[in-house]
Amino acid sequence: MNTASAEEPRWLTDEEQRTWRAYVHASTLLEDHLDRQLQRDAGMPHVYYHLLVVLSEAPQRRLRMTELAMRAKITRSRLSHAVARLEKNGWVRREDCTDDKRGQFAVLTDQGYEVLARSAPGHVLAVRQAIFDRLSPEQRGALGEIMQILAEGLQPKEAGADLPWLR
Amino acid sequence: MNTASAEEPRWLTDEEQRTWRAYVHASTLLEDHLDRQLQRDAGMPHVYYHLLVVLSEAPQRRLRMTELAMRAKITRSRLSHAVARLEKNGWVRREDCTDDKRGQFAVLTDQGYEVLARSAPGHVLAVRQAIFDRLSPEQRGALGEIMQILAEGLQPKEAGADLPWLR
Repeated sequence: MNTASAEEPRWLTDEEQRTWRAYVHASTLLEDHLDRQLQRDAGMPHVYYHLLVVLSEAPQRRLRMTELAMRAKITRSRLSHAVARLEKNGWVRREDCTDDKRGQFAVLTDQGYEVLARSAPGHVLAVRQAIFDRLSPEQRGALGEIMQILAEGLQPKEAGADLPWLR
Repeated sequence: MNTASAEEPRWLTDEEQRTWRAYVHASTLLEDHLDRQLQRDAGMPHVYYHLLVVLSEAPQRRLRMTELAMRAKITRSRLSHAVARLEKNGWVRREDCTDDKRGQFAVLTDQGYEVLARSAPGHVLAVRQAIFDRLSPEQRGALGEIMQILAEGLQPKEAGADLPWLR
């Protein structure tokens, strides 16, 4: 596509175009695939499952809501919505902070931990089959490096950066 | 995490775990970043914008709804919802097929094309800054290859495959 702007934009080359399109396709298909798998086997979409995983790795399986949003890379409003649903299922419990009236913790319940333990093998298999089993060792290494670079670039350190969990 | 299943699952190695986590972070942050950029500059989220791009590349800027869902890798119900919104904005028009009573076309309107032309430079810049400008030529090449492999793997050719646009 072309425009009448004063300075010609640096359009993507054909190869960059193909790469970008392949990324959009792969990431859209993968999210759909994992959502289907987890809805079927664990009764929740991938983003909810990921929240349970993050909580399971925290000391005492609890995190401040703001910290959980930051670790899951999502907005606080999206997190609130997700945690409300997870709480309804009995998988997460909210606790007020004693030392900070505004703060709140999310805690993984034993029931939540059980759901995670039960569905983890199927989820790991899905991730393996969709990604790692299809790539050579070199490609696996490159994927890790590239995704690390992109994730860091999208979380600039400067004050006032537009990060989901700060909104 | 561990479980009591008969056959021990092939858990991810530490490196695979890091790669997978980096992918989840990068893809979550990138979708948020592009949604913000496009909402601000074009008044629509990334998935809607992508539908307009796909239509703009089709002959006469029109595609059957099922074909559009397939090219965008989304479900028909998600597409219907998106097209209803795009139609309301005057950017897409629906047309019945004359030769197939069940079929329907989505057509990019002139107004839709203009929105696309106006917002393309900012979107390309955002994609460049988030991805291509951060990677070496080797990494750009590897990313294209890897995403192509993953996208193909997630679209098996066999009949009855659970593909979003066939649901």
